[in-house]
Amino acid sequence: MEVGREFTREVGLGGIEALIQLLAKVPGLGPRSARRAALHMLKRRESLMEPLARALREAADNVKTCSVCNNIDTVDPCTICAGTKRDRSQICVVEDIGDLWAMERVVGFRGLYHVLGGTLSALDGIGPEDLNVGGLVERAASEEVKEVILATNATVDGQTTAHYIADRLKDANVIISGLAHGVPVGGELDYLDEGTLSAALKARKPV
Amino acid sequence: MEVGREFTREVGLGGIEALIQLLAKVPGLGPRSARRAALHMLKRRESLMEPLARALREAADNVKTCSVCNNIDTVDPCTICAGTKRDRSQICVVEDIGDLWAMERVVGFRGLYHVLGGTLSALDGIGPEDLNVGGLVERAASEEVKEVILATNATVDGQTTAHYIADRLKDANVIISGLAHGVPVGGELDYLDEGTLSAALKARKPV
Ligand SMILES: [Zn+2]
Ligand SMILES: [Zn+2]
Repeated sequence: MEVGREFTREVGLGGIEALIQLLAKVPGLGPRSARRAALHMLKRRESLMEPLARALREAADNVKTCSVCNNIDTVDPCTICAGTKRDRSQICVVEDIGDLWAMERVVGFRGLYHVLGGTLSALDGIGPEDLNVGGLVERAASEEVKEVILATNATVDGQTTAHYIADRLKDANVIISGLAHGVPVGGELDYLDEGTLSAALKARKPV
Repeated sequence: MEVGREFTREVGLGGIEALIQLLAKVPGLGPRSARRAALHMLKRRESLMEPLARALREAADNVKTCSVCNNIDTVDPCTICAGTKRDRSQICVVEDIGDLWAMERVVGFRGLYHVLGGTLSALDGIGPEDLNVGGLVERAASEEVKEVILATNATVDGQTTAHYIADRLKDANVIISGLAHGVPVGGELDYLDEGTLSAALKARKPV
């Protein structure tokens, strides 16, 4: 890495080198594409670099976790939880905010959500207390909730988690359903095409 | 795109959606990886999102184009042009700042540079007046410059540009050289195009 260090010191890229190193930490960008991205943005300062700096700053300053469902938004409760047009009889349980986004964007699900923040995992030492399950049990006890849709990933950990949640909800007066097969085994929701995800939602079954 | 618009409005991602759309314009990130990148950063606000916002802001505010060589840096003349340890007898002519970075980082070239800002291109309507050639002719007239290395890409436009520049420099008292064509170090002959292989054979040297 002698050459790399030499580069930074001699060329005095200073701020640019720091920028490149941070960009290289963004998923999807490696060191080489980070350089390309930095250069691309430096050539589009007003149309891309400055707006992106502002958007990052604003998101970092204003985004918070919804105290009801664990979604992230600029308001708490989040826009979904506070939405007047949402079907409040259904709660879709997802592992991660990325999965919530997939359900919203791809499927157009119109109920409410509950974000667990992960799955049970013996390997990673993640137990029930690490997931946001207590809040879900409370919400499911409410009169207006009729159905809890377990939309955890079709992985071993995702399905273990679904069974655990179904068990925790067995005394709640709700239908508990899961996404139908159609979700490929081992598949992550975030990577699914619209057809598969829509079909899986439509054909959901009691667990 | 009805679903997409619906998503933005209903979910009220506001700043997040704007952030995702800007990230999707960064080369290397598409719409899907932009969402993943946004989520990744939202989970690493202090370690990644805020530092990146600052680095982008600082680069946007402080980076300028070198009035001598067209490099970008936080100072003008750039650190290379102002460097006391650079070999001022050599000027390496590159198409783009990315090529300058490659020469610095990969090759460790220790002379000076001249960034053209593109190549001549009949197709894209880029003529000599669009490139930073006049400045190069002036620099090459200086006593201290002994050699101009034409390191434009080995494309048709790159080579056309190199020939054009060589012609413009024919009255300057400098050696004009170009990068040798040959087998890339570590390259397998089998994968090389005929032109490269022919050039490598023609330029063969005693071992
Ligand atoms: Zn919420
Ligand atoms: Zn310079």
